[in-house]
Amino acid sequence: MAPDFQQLLPQAHIHLSWIVFGKPLFQYHSGMAYEQLKQTVFDVNIALQKSGLVVLTWGNASGVDRTAGVMAIKPSGVKYDKLAASDIVVLEIATGKVIEGTARPSSDTPTHLYLYQQFPNIGGVVHTHSQYATTFAQAHREIPCLGTTHADHFYGTVPCTRELTAAEIQTEYELNTGKVIVERFRTDKIDPDDVPGVLVASHAPFVWGATAQKALENAIALESIALMQLGAYQLNPEIRAVPQVLLDKHFKRKHGPGAYYGQK
Amino acid sequence: MAPDFQQLLPQAHIHLSWIVFGKPLFQYHSGMAYEQLKQTVFDVNIALQKSGLVVLTWGNASGVDRTAGVMAIKPSGVKYDKLAASDIVVLEIATGKVIEGTARPSSDTPTHLYLYQQFPNIGGVVHTHSQYATTFAQAHREIPCLGTTHADHFYGTVPCTRELTAAEIQTEYELNTGKVIVERFRTDKIDPDDVPGVLVASHAPFVWGATAQKALENAIALESIALMQLGAYQLNPEIRAVPQVLLDKHFKRKHGPGAYYGQK
Amino acid sequence: MAPDFQQLLPQAHIHLSWIVFGKPLFQYHSGMAYEQLKQTVFDVNIALQKSGLVVLTWGNASGVDRTAGVMAIKPSGVKYDKLAASDIVVLEIATGKVIEGTARPSSDTPTHLYLYQQFPNIGGVVHTHSQYATTFAQAHREIPCLGTTHADHFYGTVPCTRELTAAEIQTEYELNTGKVIVERFRTDKIDPDDVPGVLVASHAPFVWGATAQKALENAIALESIALMQLGAYQLNPEIRAVPQVLLDKHFKRKHGPGAYYGQK
Amino acid sequence: MAPDFQQLLPQAHIHLSWIVFGKPLFQYHSGMAYEQLKQTVFDVNIALQKSGLVVLTWGNASGVDRTAGVMAIKPSGVKYDKLAASDIVVLEIATGKVIEGTARPSSDTPTHLYLYQQFPNIGGVVHTHSQYATTFAQAHREIPCLGTTHADHFYGTVPCTRELTAAEIQTEYELNTGKVIVERFRTDKIDPDDVPGVLVASHAPFVWGATAQKALENAIALESIALMQLGAYQLNPEIRAVPQVLLDKHFKRKHGPGAYYGQK
Repeated sequence: MAPDFQQLLPQAHIHLSWIVFGKPLFQYHSGMAYEQLKQTVFDVNIALQKSGLVVLTWGNASGVDRTAGVMAIKPSGVKYDKLAASDIVVLEIATGKVIEGTARPSSDTPTHLYLYQQFPNIGGVVHTHSQYATTFAQAHREIPCLGTTHADHFYGTVPCTRELTAAEIQTEYELNTGKVIVERFRTDKIDPDDVPGVLVASHAPFVWGATAQKALENAIALESIALMQLGAYQLNPEIRAVPQVLLDKHFKRKHGPGAYYGQK
Repeated sequence: MAPDFQQLLPQAHIHLSWIVFGKPLFQYHSGMAYEQLKQTVFDVNIALQKSGLVVLTWGNASGVDRTAGVMAIKPSGVKYDKLAASDIVVLEIATGKVIEGTARPSSDTPTHLYLYQQFPNIGGVVHTHSQYATTFAQAHREIPCLGTTHADHFYGTVPCTRELTAAEIQTEYELNTGKVIVERFRTDKIDPDDVPGVLVASHAPFVWGATAQKALENAIALESIALMQLGAYQLNPEIRAVPQVLLDKHFKRKHGPGAYYGQK
Repeated sequence: MAPDFQQLLPQAHIHLSWIVFGKPLFQYHSGMAYEQLKQTVFDVNIALQKSGLVVLTWGNASGVDRTAGVMAIKPSGVKYDKLAASDIVVLEIATGKVIEGTARPSSDTPTHLYLYQQFPNIGGVVHTHSQYATTFAQAHREIPCLGTTHADHFYGTVPCTRELTAAEIQTEYELNTGKVIVERFRTDKIDPDDVPGVLVASHAPFVWGATAQKALENAIALESIALMQLGAYQLNPEIRAVPQVLLDKHFKRKHGPGAYYGQK
Repeated sequence: MAPDFQQLLPQAHIHLSWIVFGKPLFQYHSGMAYEQLKQTVFDVNIALQKSGLVVLTWGNASGVDRTAGVMAIKPSGVKYDKLAASDIVVLEIATGKVIEGTARPSSDTPTHLYLYQQFPNIGGVVHTHSQYATTFAQAHREIPCLGTTHADHFYGTVPCTRELTAAEIQTEYELNTGKVIVERFRTDKIDPDDVPGVLVASHAPFVWGATAQKALENAIALESIALMQLGAYQLNPEIRAVPQVLLDKHFKRKHGPGAYYGQK
């Protein structure tokens, strides 16, 4: 009697990849392989909407499976109350090719992809037009660290990019948005693992983290920080960033080998 | 035996109109013809209230059936928790004559009617006293485009009307409110399909769209934009409107033949 | 057999009053006469709490039965989630004597009583520390009419009282709070029926209306107006009150014999 | 037959302490003695989260049993929706030794402990990064009393600490946070029972009260006061603290032997 492969491999899928110098030159995926990743990205998109950071459809969250070399992201312009986990689109990080999903992915997909390609440790990206962070982006103002709320999430100033040139806007706008972000971090030698977010000038924040959930938490933190910064400047226009020692203390209390915040 | 017309035409209604040079000179309606329009306008009024844009009864939404030449609007001063779809009032756009409904229509009805008469492509109008947009109206300040949130909904500055004269206030106030809006768009050659909203000086915003639902979304966007604008001016009084190329990119990403935002 | 008075007069109560020159010199009440008034005042207090105008227990609403010469008010310092209609305290307007209820009435009772005594047409008073109206009270800034939202509820500037003297604070503080309010209206010949609210300097707003419900609506309006005023001054420090003709139009659209807002 | 101690003492626990000059030199606790304290502290932490003062996990509440010499506090970094009363950690006030609970206590525990050690009448401490109070802390601005809302809860200016030195940050940071708070109160002879809260410069507020519930109420009051203060300065940069007589009146209306606010 022939073996019942259905029973032996009820959730089988094939994933082949040929990786050369750390870059996948060839990948093949089959089956519904990314249920868990899609569920996570769905959950974070829903949590993002409930957080109040997103008005209408102005926002999206993505997450990755680095081993598989794929990213999952919200479909474009779909209202949150119509969204299902099965609508989440899965793409190859290296090529941007859609692997799973029939919907068109978020129009910001090239920005997300570029960030994952260039910042190798990040596992999630959240984009919002949250009101106070976007206020800073529209004013072309970076957010220096004025207190421990900031230091707990961002190890120093949250930078603001330069404006895109006309050419960068007209062709491959979303990819170029990713490029000016990375340029800003490279130029000033900012470590994206330490400062997990940026304000895109005249646009809005992109925020990331080790996971999609962490990216969401950093986006929530950034919005709160921005609101407080605006008021602090009104109360005391002379206020300056906290000393490095306080920044070290708070960031390292929560991150890295010496962290002692939270449960072991 | 005589035919049972009741059975043959259980939901019959008669609609006659005589249209000359695009203007309806004569219209006749009978029966309960506008259930769907009334339901849509009811739904948008309820969504408007849930959006937080409306305090007390300071707001109303309307929608049209251009084929039938009619507008449906919230009754005047009725609390949202008492409102039923059957309370929605239907009027002829051309004449303002009530066709269906026993309640008095919104006191702002002449403004809505005039906007539908003069802006032939719009399908819905939302009026609110939403707090930040009204703040700009009270300060007599237009809202230039400072970022992509704005550019996604309004293709350029959201204008502010001139103040009405004493005579315009004393006689046919609500009609004249419509007239100063249209005057503002005509004088500066602003296309109401591209800039679907306005601030009426010393009053509040009127916002529109291709449908009542789109008008609501634009009203939500306007409120968010206004809040962010107020903060951006505080952070950077020198901030100026974004370049035309960014405005083009974002507006056209969502509108017109080249749009690539959302699902096909 | 003796008549069954219980059955004949199941809800009997006795109310005697001897009124001379419009003032009640003697009043006698018996029984549970004020169920409806207490329910109304309870309902408005609960609606006040739900409106978001009240933090902790910083607020109270009262209402009157002018025929009976009584006022009903929230008990002092009771949390809203513990409040029952039966806790509402009923007092004689003329004397402040408690007629019904075992709880201590709101500490602001003498202010409410004085307002009812001096402003004969008002039927409800709401006191809050709502955030933006209180901001103006703390800044000793009146609120001129900058737009139609204001004009719909307040026929002109919402005034701010002078500060109380040390003697006025030390003795009969709450009564004197009422007195500086009335003084402000008398001195500037402001009609309390047209301008149903005031900011008490260094304290917070008192707002009234023809009924307790109307007083609540005016308190909600005042808070919204205050928030918008603060922003309007930031956008345009030169902004001045709207012309009298717009004030007339909007206030009279909603109030008095020529009103055409709402349902007949 | 031996007695069944289990039955005789089903909830027995042993608490031994040797107190010399008011300081416990030795304490011994056994059994699950602190169910009620843990439930109270749990309830206040949940109420804190519902109050909107806390974003993410930026906040914690503690309470004490002075007789037993113990403090109960939220565990570190645990999300509020995962928190159970049994997770609350109980520590000796004098030594900081954990008596009950397996989770790591809040990283701010040394600050709470020091406040309880130095301020002998306080029964609860609440720490938040609430947005407007933190705005003042980040701007290094104290909050003078501008009105009665403030005077009802804080008998005078809410002070702001000095910044911690580099050494104070690097070693025993949380303990030193407690020390700069106490230093600020001692230096200016501020009574912590009269002014139950402080802004830690570049950080956020710590607020306390006779009970954990009162500490929460004072934290809610402080946030509201801070929001109103920010606006009042914008409206009137010249505004100064209220006179002492108004401060006396309002604070003493609610506190101390002459209090007449609330129910007897």
